[in-house]
Amino acid sequence: MDINEYFANRCTVRNYTDKEIDPALLMQMLEEAAHAPNTGNMQLYSVIVSRTPEEKAALAPMHFNQPCATGCSVLLTFCIDINRFRRWCEANHAEEGFGNSQMLLASAIDASLFAQQFNTIAELNGLGCCYLGTTAYNAAEIAAILKCPDGVVPLISLAVGYPKGEGNRSDRLPIGSIVHFGKYDDYDYSRIKSVYADKESLEESAEFIAQNNKETLAQVYAEVRYPKATNELFSKSLDEYLDRTFFKK
Amino acid sequence: MDINEYFANRCTVRNYTDKEIDPALLMQMLEEAAHAPNTGNMQLYSVIVSRTPEEKAALAPMHFNQPCATGCSVLLTFCIDINRFRRWCEANHAEEGFGNSQMLLASAIDASLFAQQFNTIAELNGLGCCYLGTTAYNAAEIAAILKCPDGVVPLISLAVGYPKGEGNRSDRLPIGSIVHFGKYDDYDYSRIKSVYADKESLEESAEFIAQNNKETLAQVYAEVRYPKATNELFSKSLDEYLDRTFFKK
Repeated sequence: MDINEYFANRCTVRNYTDKEIDPALLMQMLEEAAHAPNTGNMQLYSVIVSRTPEEKAALAPMHFNQPCATGCSVLLTFCIDINRFRRWCEANHAEEGFGNSQMLLASAIDASLFAQQFNTIAELNGLGCCYLGTTAYNAAEIAAILKCPDGVVPLISLAVGYPKGEGNRSDRLPIGSIVHFGKYDDYDYSRIKSVYADKESLEESAEFIAQNNKETLAQVYAEVRYPKATNELFSKSLDEYLDRTFFKK
Repeated sequence: MDINEYFANRCTVRNYTDKEIDPALLMQMLEEAAHAPNTGNMQLYSVIVSRTPEEKAALAPMHFNQPCATGCSVLLTFCIDINRFRRWCEANHAEEGFGNSQMLLASAIDASLFAQQFNTIAELNGLGCCYLGTTAYNAAEIAAILKCPDGVVPLISLAVGYPKGEGNRSDRLPIGSIVHFGKYDDYDYSRIKSVYADKESLEESAEFIAQNNKETLAQVYAEVRYPKATNELFSKSLDEYLDRTFFKK
């Protein structure tokens, strides 16, 4: 596959054939992905592989039963992990202090870079992937199912399998509206209208507005898909879970 | 470049020639990188490009004057960004509620996937990159320099340039110690010794222990490089900055 063509055309794949991923290929891809950069080469992450129908079915409700959670060949749960580092310190008379927000953020970044490197490698090997944006919503419940000890936080879930049919190629905002030079160039009313103009003019945007009985596309995103009350409810449970198991407050 | 060879051999590059990155190439790579997956296709991130010697020099102290911060061709600061989404909502009579921990984590993941996709694309285009693990340490100060408004949090900095000399190929833990099947398989004493055995036996590990007058490699990591007092100090300033500008507590 031509590499520039790949990056310019990659897309999320939510439907998969029944073909299983060869376990040796999976490990090889994960091993290559672990060469993604990470903070201080501490590798503060783990990945939990759910392969059997039972393992995937147990997690599916935590992902609001999105079909790709059970339809995939493997469901990967990438976790923040300061537990392994802690065990190493315990075995080596070292005093660690990693249960704080800097280390949470550093390990979340590292787990994300690892996940994305895997996603790229898997797609280049002919697989299709779909990130499930639901992991942090039910992190405590997923941690319980996967027997994660304190310091191991489920962060990202990735469904992986051989593609059935075409993937979805999503629109993106104009790159000039994402990139700033020298300093952040804030958006006034006329610029913000121009940033979102193409997105708002998509045929599907009009459908989303009509289906949801709203007046603007921004209302669909902010009030229907990611409404304040839901965000705050799930944030409260995430905060409580992190306070209890990661920050130990 | 053979793609499998690339993933199996990629490494961080900290030294760069004087050759500048063509601005059109930079934008093309950023545009391709923005096709990385993101939460709900909201693209809750921005990237700020520092190109001039003055722009890079202003940021360098915030990165503890690591030479690659000024020696690179461009220094990219990838930011969490809920400000652009908010401006869109304001312009469209939509009520948003994104200043909470779920959206902080979602946008941190999205910014990380975008950064890593860029890193891969840049390396495949012959560039060398180095993540600076210091951005969240001085997020408030970096935000002030880059004029980031509330809701825009500097998260990841990436130095990019044409490589001078060879990069550093870092060791990694055995992949079997990172990957768990079905559930998290916690580490007992004998397993943790085996997980870190290769790392501890590296020649450089003995040097680190001797240089720092410590007894074990774990002590070098936990007590010298990432000591509890430092982690907690920088976490306090990060927490205060996020409370003030992101959570608006």
